[in-house]
Formats: sequence, C-alpha cells, structure tokens
Amino acid sequence: MAAAVNGTSSPSITFYTNRGCPWAQRAQITLKELKLPYEEVTIDLNTPREDWYLKINPRGLVPSINFTGGGVHDEILTESAVVSQFLADVNPSHLTQPDHIKGAQAALFRARVAFFVDSFFSKVNTGFYPLLKAESQEEKDKLVHDTVEAIKKEIEPLLKDANPFFGGSSKLTMAEVLTAPFVQRYLSFSQAGLLPESLKQGLESLPNFSKWANEVVKQDSVQFGFDEQKIIEGMRNRIAKLKAQAK
Amino acid sequence: MAAAVNGTSSPSITFYTNRGCPWAQRAQITLKELKLPYEEVTIDLNTPREDWYLKINPRGLVPSINFTGGGVHDEILTESAVVSQFLADVNPSHLTQPDHIKGAQAALFRARVAFFVDSFFSKVNTGFYPLLKAESQEEKDKLVHDTVEAIKKEIEPLLKDANPFFGGSSKLTMAEVLTAPFVQRYLSFSQAGLLPESLKQGLESLPNFSKWANEVVKQDSVQFGFDEQKIIEGMRNRIAKLKAQAK
Repeated sequence: MAAAVNGTSSPSITFYTNRGCPWAQRAQITLKELKLPYEEVTIDLNTPREDWYLKINPRGLVPSINFTGGGVHDEILTESAVVSQFLADVNPSHLTQPDHIKGAQAALFRARVAFFVDSFFSKVNTGFYPLLKAESQEEKDKLVHDTVEAIKKEIEPLLKDANPFFGGSSKLTMAEVLTAPFVQRYLSFSQAGLLPESLKQGLESLPNFSKWANEVVKQDSVQFGFDEQKIIEGMRNRIAKLKAQAK
Repeated sequence: MAAAVNGTSSPSITFYTNRGCPWAQRAQITLKELKLPYEEVTIDLNTPREDWYLKINPRGLVPSINFTGGGVHDEILTESAVVSQFLADVNPSHLTQPDHIKGAQAALFRARVAFFVDSFFSKVNTGFYPLLKAESQEEKDKLVHDTVEAIKKEIEPLLKDANPFFGGSSKLTMAEVLTAPFVQRYLSFSQAGLLPESLKQGLESLPNFSKWANEVVKQDSVQFGFDEQKIIEGMRNRIAKLKAQAK
C-alpha cells in the first residue's frame, strides 16, 4: 500500500541504484527515513551501461528515480542530491523540518544544512578518493592531516549543538542524509585498513564530530543495504584498478 | 518601509558585497527580484579583509548577510547560493514558484532548477577562469570549443521550453538568479575581447541558449550595479595579476 504524498495521491517510485555507490546511498537513506515504498532496480556499474538505462539517465550514473505522485507523472530525476532533496520536499518530515518548524525558521534550517553539506564536500571530502589511492606513507600522512584539520576547522564548529543530530534534532536531517554514506566509509574503511588507522585516531580526537558520526552510522536507514564486507572488497578492487590505470 | 516576511514581521537586511564579484551578484539579483529593502556594505576585495568582517564571515568572502525577520533574529548567512536560496525561501515568489505552483509540482520545479544549476557549474563554468587566463591561441580555441560543446550538450536541452525563462516562466527563476552573473560575463566579455570573439559566435549558434541568455541579461535585476566598463577593467587587472603570479 503506497503512502500519500501531500494527501492527494499515492507515489509510485522506481529506484535505479547500486548498493555499493555512496552517492546512490543518499537517496536510499532518504527513502528509508521517509518510509516510502519503491521498486529497486540494480544497475551494474562494472559493465558499460545498457541503452535502456542511458535513456533514463544519459550520464549513466546512479541514482535515478522515476516518480509518480502528488500531481507529478512519470518524471525521471537524476543526481543524488537532487533526487534526495526532491523526495524530502514532496514529503515534509523531520528531514527538512525538525520540530515542525515553518516559515523563516524552516528556511534558515535549510540554509544551515546547505552550508554544512557544501562545507563537507568542498572542504573535506575532496580528500576521500586521493586518500584511498595514496601509496606512500608520506602522502597518506599528509592527506590524513589535511582531512582531520578540515573537519576540525569547517565541520566541528557546525556540530556544537548536535543532539545527537544536526541543529539539535533528535532524528536524521538532510545534513546527515547527504553526508552519511561518506562518514560511514571514513569510519568503516579506517577500521578495516582501507584508509589509514591514523585517520580513525584523528577523527576520535574531535569530540563533536566523533559523537555525531557514531550516532549517524548506527541508524537503520544508514545501515540498510550496507553490506560492509562486500563494499570494502568492491572498493579494494576499484582502487587497485584505478592505481593500475594510473601507471 | 520594510516588506513583510511571511506576514509576521519586517525584515532588516545588511548585505556585505562587492559589485564586481559575480558570486555576490547572485544575492544582489535575488534582493532586487524580491524587492527587499537592505543596507549595502561594500567589502574591498583588493586588500586583506579587516578583523570586523572576518568575525562576520571567517572565510572573508562575499556575499554575507545579516538577517532579522519572520522570527529569525540577527542571523549571519554566507555563501552565495545559500544566501540567495534563503532569501527566496523566506519570500515565496516567482523565483521558486512560478505560476504559484505548490506541493509536488513546486518540489519538482526546485529539483529541475537544482539540476540545471549543478549542470551549469559542474559541466560548463569550470572553463570560465581558465578561458580568461588562457594565453595561446590553441589553448583558447580548445577551451572555447569545450565550453560551447558543454552548453550544447548539458544546457541547451534544458532550455527547450524556456519562455523566455526556465521551465516556461515569464519571470526570472532561481535557475537564472544563480547563473546570470556568469551568463552576463560570457556575453559581455566576449564582446569586449576579454574572452575570445569565437565564444560569442559559438553561443549564438545555440538557439535555446542564446535566446534565453539575451533575455536574462536584459533584466533590471541583472543589470543593477553591473558597471560594465569598471567590471571589465577590474577583471583585466585581476587576470594580469594571476598570470604574473603563475610565472
């Protein structure tokens, strides 16, 4: 039984994804937080995209959704932030309006979330793939240092009132939805040795971030479909391939 | 007399900006489209930022706003997209809801705008500063070709129903607000010889884009404070400085 969208109709969602992709996982978390029904279609990212999928998303990336509901018919949306925000916007919830805030307060919350997410991706996460690919100890040390310093300077202060989530929210917000897949990988990969152990120690030295991150990764919506061993194995293979190509 | 925000109070806005900065101009256009009153404070970008401004925006960039209104008191917001979207969100208007659309349709419009703006900045505008700094004819030719091809592939199809603005809107939308300062500079600078003349010809060969761009740059809110000769001169000096530093 489909849930109501704005009380006017029932949404029908086809979700094109791959459970190993952190970007697609943003939309996955959104769907789970909103408890929306959907049909999941897995796109194999290890082979060239098939024509039928390129018709849905010419860029060939995941996620994409096909959405019908609330007066919107058979619309295709792509790009993880766009898809996630759209789903959150058509279903007002704790993700966009913690404590049911409205008006200017809701706009301010949205702006604070946008600043947080932009800071995370423009100041911190630029080091994610370089860290995974780094070969020498010197390179790894420098990148770990830069990542921890960037989180300390740009993210730590923005989490001072997290309780346990962004802006004092008791439930996940879009700030978590859009960053969680990477936060999860920083924690998981540094535990598994895919990222340096020193990263784990560096993150643990940041009280706001580490407390927040540990709460984020515990959530059912973030855990859903995160087959840790398979994802670590997949990333190991991908990194090996990238390194081989670079030589 | 200040306009009402959500009918609950009158906004008081201090706008820290520099009229030569295209990013700050995004917020300027938003303020003008929404007909909001504000106090403008010019930040000199040619000298180190003073301490009082670094307390407002530790990154030292423009724009920043200090906003009071609608139950929000003395809040500082930074980063041009965040500031512009916040102002548009607290004042529902043609920018976010053309034809007064609501619910899922409004969310869909917002998603389409987000996809458009992301495509413009991730696929097209990455060539803006490289083009300004390019020295050899070969380099310029390549960058002009790449820029025109990117607009043709990524932007032209998204403007097929522009009438004259994004999504068939008769007034500016956030799609224009967030891209207009750069569209304006592509047109103006290629006319003035600061960008290659061939760029102008390339853009004119794209019917949707050129029709749309010509309408965008005509708008009062986009023209406001755009002292063309001064901006061209300022950019010439800045490019000369960047080229000298690179040597």
